[in-house]
Amino acid sequence: MKFNKILLVGYNGNELDDAYWKRIDALTKEKAFIPADDSKLNDQLKHADAVLVKLGGKVSKEMIDSAPNLKYIGMLGTGFGGIDVGYASSKKITICNIADYATEGVAEFTFGVILNYLRELERGKNQAKDGDYSEATFTGTEIKGKNFGVIGLGNIGKRTAALAQVFGAKVSYWSKNKKEGFEYQEIENLLKTSDIITLNLALTQDTKGFLNKERLQLIKKGALLVNPSPMELVDVDALMVRLKQGNISFILDHSDEMTEEQLAKLKSFENCVVYPPIAYTTKEATQLKKGIFVGNLENFLKGKPTNKVN
Amino acid sequence: MKFNKILLVGYNGNELDDAYWKRIDALTKEKAFIPADDSKLNDQLKHADAVLVKLGGKVSKEMIDSAPNLKYIGMLGTGFGGIDVGYASSKKITICNIADYATEGVAEFTFGVILNYLRELERGKNQAKDGDYSEATFTGTEIKGKNFGVIGLGNIGKRTAALAQVFGAKVSYWSKNKKEGFEYQEIENLLKTSDIITLNLALTQDTKGFLNKERLQLIKKGALLVNPSPMELVDVDALMVRLKQGNISFILDHSDEMTEEQLAKLKSFENCVVYPPIAYTTKEATQLKKGIFVGNLENFLKGKPTNKVN
Repeated sequence: MKFNKILLVGYNGNELDDAYWKRIDALTKEKAFIPADDSKLNDQLKHADAVLVKLGGKVSKEMIDSAPNLKYIGMLGTGFGGIDVGYASSKKITICNIADYATEGVAEFTFGVILNYLRELERGKNQAKDGDYSEATFTGTEIKGKNFGVIGLGNIGKRTAALAQVFGAKVSYWSKNKKEGFEYQEIENLLKTSDIITLNLALTQDTKGFLNKERLQLIKKGALLVNPSPMELVDVDALMVRLKQGNISFILDHSDEMTEEQLAKLKSFENCVVYPPIAYTTKEATQLKKGIFVGNLENFLKGKPTNKVN
Repeated sequence: MKFNKILLVGYNGNELDDAYWKRIDALTKEKAFIPADDSKLNDQLKHADAVLVKLGGKVSKEMIDSAPNLKYIGMLGTGFGGIDVGYASSKKITICNIADYATEGVAEFTFGVILNYLRELERGKNQAKDGDYSEATFTGTEIKGKNFGVIGLGNIGKRTAALAQVFGAKVSYWSKNKKEGFEYQEIENLLKTSDIITLNLALTQDTKGFLNKERLQLIKKGALLVNPSPMELVDVDALMVRLKQGNISFILDHSDEMTEEQLAKLKSFENCVVYPPIAYTTKEATQLKKGIFVGNLENFLKGKPTNKVN
């Protein structure tokens, strides 16, 4: 069995290596690329039975209505907030994403930025570059012994918690549903008592703005908060108020969701570090992601869909 | 029982907090400070029954001969390479150092600099500072799956190996004596096959220049070598030859043992990162160190010396 037409919305062809494109070509009679804002999108959707979007890509009710043959929506990424899942489900359309491809990459990034911060590695390197090899002003602290709070205990949260525990931190977590393996804390207590906090929630309608004004104000003085997840989880204006008080530090690697103005303001705080979204972009994760993306298409055609989210 | 005179060679009084100095004052009738190169050193040694030196401090045969009452030599640090241990032992002088105070600090530093390197955290931060949030050029790799070779399986080596294993690396070690818990490899094989190598040997006459020309040439192309131990373990000129070949990276945090010229040359290599000696200087390690230093003196007087090295 093959698709009649796979429509790739917002892709330019550089997303995959040739070998993967060949595997996709073998699955369909026709393959077409179209920009997300192209006026011919609805026309192109008419004959598509598979639509592939990228992270942040939208598949609206209107688009689904324009594609009467649609049976598969694929994501090159994890978050599917742009897809009208309820409406797609009502039309028996299968939605597959890519989960758990970057668990290690994100967890390793998290400890990289934590240690970088705790030990002032950049200042050390620059000072040595300038010919000053004195350690006198370096009084970093250790992860060992710290209260380490993980918000959200999915794959990445769980892996982060496990590594923190091995580093010797006292780990606790908050999650909507209690889970095995780590100490549960009410979110208010976690925020009040943790020295290091990582935000590992998936973005949904429920979690949008999760770190709101009230919760941001609860964070312990001197705490470090690391967010390798979408910034929609955080009320950015309220974060700036808390950063201005000067007694927490915040590290993030997602910038897509913010305006240039917000980013410029965040970066003006000495206690806020902004990275490009590089937590997910290890070589290993990127390879894994491409393989799962194509595998999802293949498995759907075999009648055994993988990574189905609806 | 008390000391008659504790002589502190090379100390200025800022090394300890008041509370620790008070504990030392309680242990001796007299306490004196003297610079290591002071011409009155031999005079001052005459009545000293305890001599305290800092890391790198020397206690020569001549000094020992100038101190007929000497019964205790204390180190504010681990490495006692500057002390004539054989001669001191022949005079029944007890030498105590401070071991195992910075195991966590050094191991955490090691993973901080490894992750900083693998993920290009500094470039990421600077790029974002300049307003460019693209992740396109970031293709970092993960610790997971890497061959991770630990040279020397003392406290720090063992802790480093344990953490690497939890990160998912394939860990092996070389040590003079085989030990339990990790896979042993001949040093040649370890150097040839490891993607990441940490040098965790204690500096002794046997290990001086351990990473010599031949061994440096064996290191796998593309490998990262981290040395949080004294640079006397490495033939620095041969290291420069290997760095010039451009196919390994080297990170170090010990500069004391090198000339300004050597340091300037090392820093000129893009694939060599020099930090000030900050692996050992966490708040936690520093507190522990001071406590052990004073505790060693107290325990010696009680007839139960701790951390005796001879």
